[in-house]
Amino acid sequence: MNKVCPVPQAAAAPTLAPLDGDTITARLKELAAFTDVPGELTRLTLTPAHKRAAAQVSFWMREAGLTQVHMDGTGAIVGRYPADRADARTLLIGSHIDTVRNAGIYDGNLGVMTAIAAVEALHSQGVRLPFAIEVAAFADEEGVRFLSTLTSSRAMAGTFDARSLDDVDQSGISRMEALRSFGAPADRIAQCRRDPADTLGYVEVHIEQGPVLETAGAPLGIVTGIAGASRGHVRIRGEAGHSGTLPMPMRHDALAAAAEMILAVEARGAADADALVATVGTLLIAGGAVNVVPGEVQFSLDVRALNDELRHRAVADIRAAAAAIAARRGVSAVVDIGHDVPAALCHGPLKERMAQVVEGLGLPVVRLPSGAGHDAMVFRDILPMAMLFVRSRNGSHNPREYAAPADIGLAAAALYAFLLKTAAEMAPPA
Amino acid sequence: MNKVCPVPQAAAAPTLAPLDGDTITARLKELAAFTDVPGELTRLTLTPAHKRAAAQVSFWMREAGLTQVHMDGTGAIVGRYPADRADARTLLIGSHIDTVRNAGIYDGNLGVMTAIAAVEALHSQGVRLPFAIEVAAFADEEGVRFLSTLTSSRAMAGTFDARSLDDVDQSGISRMEALRSFGAPADRIAQCRRDPADTLGYVEVHIEQGPVLETAGAPLGIVTGIAGASRGHVRIRGEAGHSGTLPMPMRHDALAAAAEMILAVEARGAADADALVATVGTLLIAGGAVNVVPGEVQFSLDVRALNDELRHRAVADIRAAAAAIAARRGVSAVVDIGHDVPAALCHGPLKERMAQVVEGLGLPVVRLPSGAGHDAMVFRDILPMAMLFVRSRNGSHNPREYAAPADIGLAAAALYAFLLKTAAEMAPPA
Repeated sequence: MNKVCPVPQAAAAPTLAPLDGDTITARLKELAAFTDVPGELTRLTLTPAHKRAAAQVSFWMREAGLTQVHMDGTGAIVGRYPADRADARTLLIGSHIDTVRNAGIYDGNLGVMTAIAAVEALHSQGVRLPFAIEVAAFADEEGVRFLSTLTSSRAMAGTFDARSLDDVDQSGISRMEALRSFGAPADRIAQCRRDPADTLGYVEVHIEQGPVLETAGAPLGIVTGIAGASRGHVRIRGEAGHSGTLPMPMRHDALAAAAEMILAVEARGAADADALVATVGTLLIAGGAVNVVPGEVQFSLDVRALNDELRHRAVADIRAAAAAIAARRGVSAVVDIGHDVPAALCHGPLKERMAQVVEGLGLPVVRLPSGAGHDAMVFRDILPMAMLFVRSRNGSHNPREYAAPADIGLAAAALYAFLLKTAAEMAPPA
Repeated sequence: MNKVCPVPQAAAAPTLAPLDGDTITARLKELAAFTDVPGELTRLTLTPAHKRAAAQVSFWMREAGLTQVHMDGTGAIVGRYPADRADARTLLIGSHIDTVRNAGIYDGNLGVMTAIAAVEALHSQGVRLPFAIEVAAFADEEGVRFLSTLTSSRAMAGTFDARSLDDVDQSGISRMEALRSFGAPADRIAQCRRDPADTLGYVEVHIEQGPVLETAGAPLGIVTGIAGASRGHVRIRGEAGHSGTLPMPMRHDALAAAAEMILAVEARGAADADALVATVGTLLIAGGAVNVVPGEVQFSLDVRALNDELRHRAVADIRAAAAAIAARRGVSAVVDIGHDVPAALCHGPLKERMAQVVEGLGLPVVRLPSGAGHDAMVFRDILPMAMLFVRSRNGSHNPREYAAPADIGLAAAALYAFLLKTAAEMAPPA
C-alpha cells in the first residue's frame, strides 16, 4: 500500500508568509473558538457556531484576495480567485468546516485554511494563473446532525438530492428550516453545480486520520483514492437461558456465535491486510444480564477497500462464514448491508502532479488510500479529483487529533506548488 | 449428571384434594394478581403488592391448619403445624414470594403453595406427625430491589447481616425503611434464627428453571446441591481508531480480543460440560460506533459448578487464557471476580429419602445440580437441606415460564409423601 522513501534530513522550508505552518495553525485554533458547546469544539452543520465560523472564513477569504465570496444554497462559503484571462477554466479546492461533537481542530478545517493560504500566497505576489481558483468551505461533511450528508459538495457536483431538504435532526428541525435560519439561499442550490467542461478538477488537503504516514515518517501522503465501503449489521437469534441452569451442550448462545463471527470478520480483513479493512464497532445484547445466556445479539459490520470487487468478495466471504457458524451452532444470522458506496479513485495526472510537488519539496512520496470518506468522493465520475494527506496523530474525531505546524506548512507549500505546476503545464490558450 | 429412567405410562395420581395440581395452579394464578405493575407480575421485595400477597398467603396458611401465622422481622410469612407431641423438633419447608420484574408465576411461589398444600393434606386428615412443620414464605430471594438478598432465609439460618438494613433501592429507600412500611418488626430479626439442635432440616420445592428434566422426560428431579458461583467481569483496553484509516496489522481491537476470550470461556465450560457452566452475558463497548475500532470493552463472567475446586480451576484457566490472548494482541485485560459463593450440597439422607418417594410415585429418579441460587443455599453447614425440582419450560424470570399442573400435583404429592416417610423413619420419642 505504501511506498516508503528515506526521510530527508531537512525538508525544504516554505518561504512565503501565508504558507507558514504556525500561522495556519493559529487560524485553526482561532476557528476552533466557534463552538456550540463551550469547552470543546462541537460545530454541527448549520448551527449558530457554524454561522459564526462561516463569517470568519469569509473574512479570511476576502483578505486572501478571493472575490465574490458568498454563502451558497447549501451553507458553504465559496470565494473565487480570478484567472489571468477571460474564459479560463476553474480549479476547485475545498474541504469542510462543520465538525463532529467534541471534535479535533484539524479535520476539514485544515483543508480550507491551507487552500486560503495558497491563494493568499499567490495574491501576496500579485500572481494570476491561467485558470481561476475557487475555494470552498463546505457545510456538511460529518453527517452527525442529519442522516444525509455531503450536500454541499454534491450540490457542486450536480448530484444534490432534494429529498435531503426534508431530513430532520433530533429536535425535529428539517434541513430546509436549518438552511433558512442559517441564511443560506436554499432556493438556489441548483446554481451550485459546476459545469465539468469549465472545471479542471477538485483538490482537497486533509489530515490522514490514520497512522500510516506517522509510521512511514512522511509528512505528506498522496491519496490513491477513497475506499468504497460496505456498512450494515448482523443480527443473531439464538435462545436465551439461565446461566446457571442451561447446560453447555444445550445452549444456542447468540453472543458466542457473534464472537466467532467477529473473529471471522477480523480474519477476512487481515487476509487482505494491504488492501482491505473489516471492522465490528458496535455490539448489543438484547436483554443482556450477567446470569442470562444471550438469546439475541446484533453487531455492526464495516468493510472498506479501494477495490470494489475485492470488497464485495470480502463481504460475500463474511456472509458465508456467518452462515456456516450459525448453522453449526443452531442459531440464525441475518447479514444486512444497508450501505454500499463505491470507491472513488484519484485522477492519475492530478495525483502524479501532486506526487511530483511533494518530491520537489524533498519529501518522501507515500501513496495511500483514504479509508475515511471525504467531500472529494462525490466528484467520482464527474471531475478529476486529487487529495493530499497530512501526517496526523491520535486518529480524528476527538480533541487529541494533531498535525504538527511544520507538516501543515509543508502541505500549504505543496498545494501552492501544485497550483504553479498546474499553470506551468497548461497549454497556452487558443 | 442425570440418571434418566424410563418414563412410566401413567404416574401415580395424587389422591388428596389439597394436592391436586389444578388447585395449586389456580392459587398460583390468584397470587400472580398481586403485582405492582398492572398487566405483568412484578412484585419486588417489600412493596405494596408483596404486602397484599403476604396477606393472601397468611390466609391460605391459616386455612391449611397452620397456626401462629405471622410476619417475621424480615417480612417473611411463617406458619407452624404443631407436632403430635411436646418438645418435638421442627422441619422447615419454604420458598419465596418476591419476584423479579415481569416474572413468571411459578418461581418461588410454587414452593410455598406446595408446602401449604402438603400441610393442608395432613390437616384435612387430622394427621399430626412426630415433628412440627414450619412453612416459610420468604420475602427476599430475587435480589432485584436491593444489593443484598436472601435476608429472610439468612435470618432463619442465623447469618443475617445487619448491614443489609442500610442498603438502599433506586429510589433511595433503605431496607430498614422498606421493612417499616411493610409492617415487619425489624427489631425482632434476631428472633428469626432457628436453633439447629431443634430443627430437622430445610426442604424446598422449586421449578427447575432449566431444560434438564424436560429433556429427560421426568416430572420431578432430586437436587444434588446448589452450584457455587464465581461472578465478575473482564475489562479490556486496546486502542480505538477509525475503521477506515487504521490498517488491520496496526490494530489493537478490544472487541476482537473480547471475542476470542468469550470463545475461551465457552470452551472451558464445554470441557467439563457435565459439571460446569461458564457464561458471558453482558458486553459493553466504550464509545462504540460503526466506524470506530473498539478501544475498550467490558464483559461479564459467570462460572458455576457443584464442585468448588473444579470451578476455581476453571476460573484460573479463563484468567490464563485471557492473559495469553491479551498479550498476543497487545491489549490489557483485567479479570475481576467480585463474587465467589461456595456450593451448597444437599444432605445425603434427606436427598435419598426424597429420591425414594419420587420412585414410590412411579416416577423416574433424575438427580441434578441447581445452577441457580435458592433460599436453601443459606443453610449450608447449618442445617440438613434438600430440594425437589419440578419440570419447567421456558426457563424462568419471564412470563413464559411454565410448569404443568400434573407435574405440580406430583411435586405436592412427593412433598406430602416425604413428610410421612420422615415421620415413619423417626425413632419413637425418648
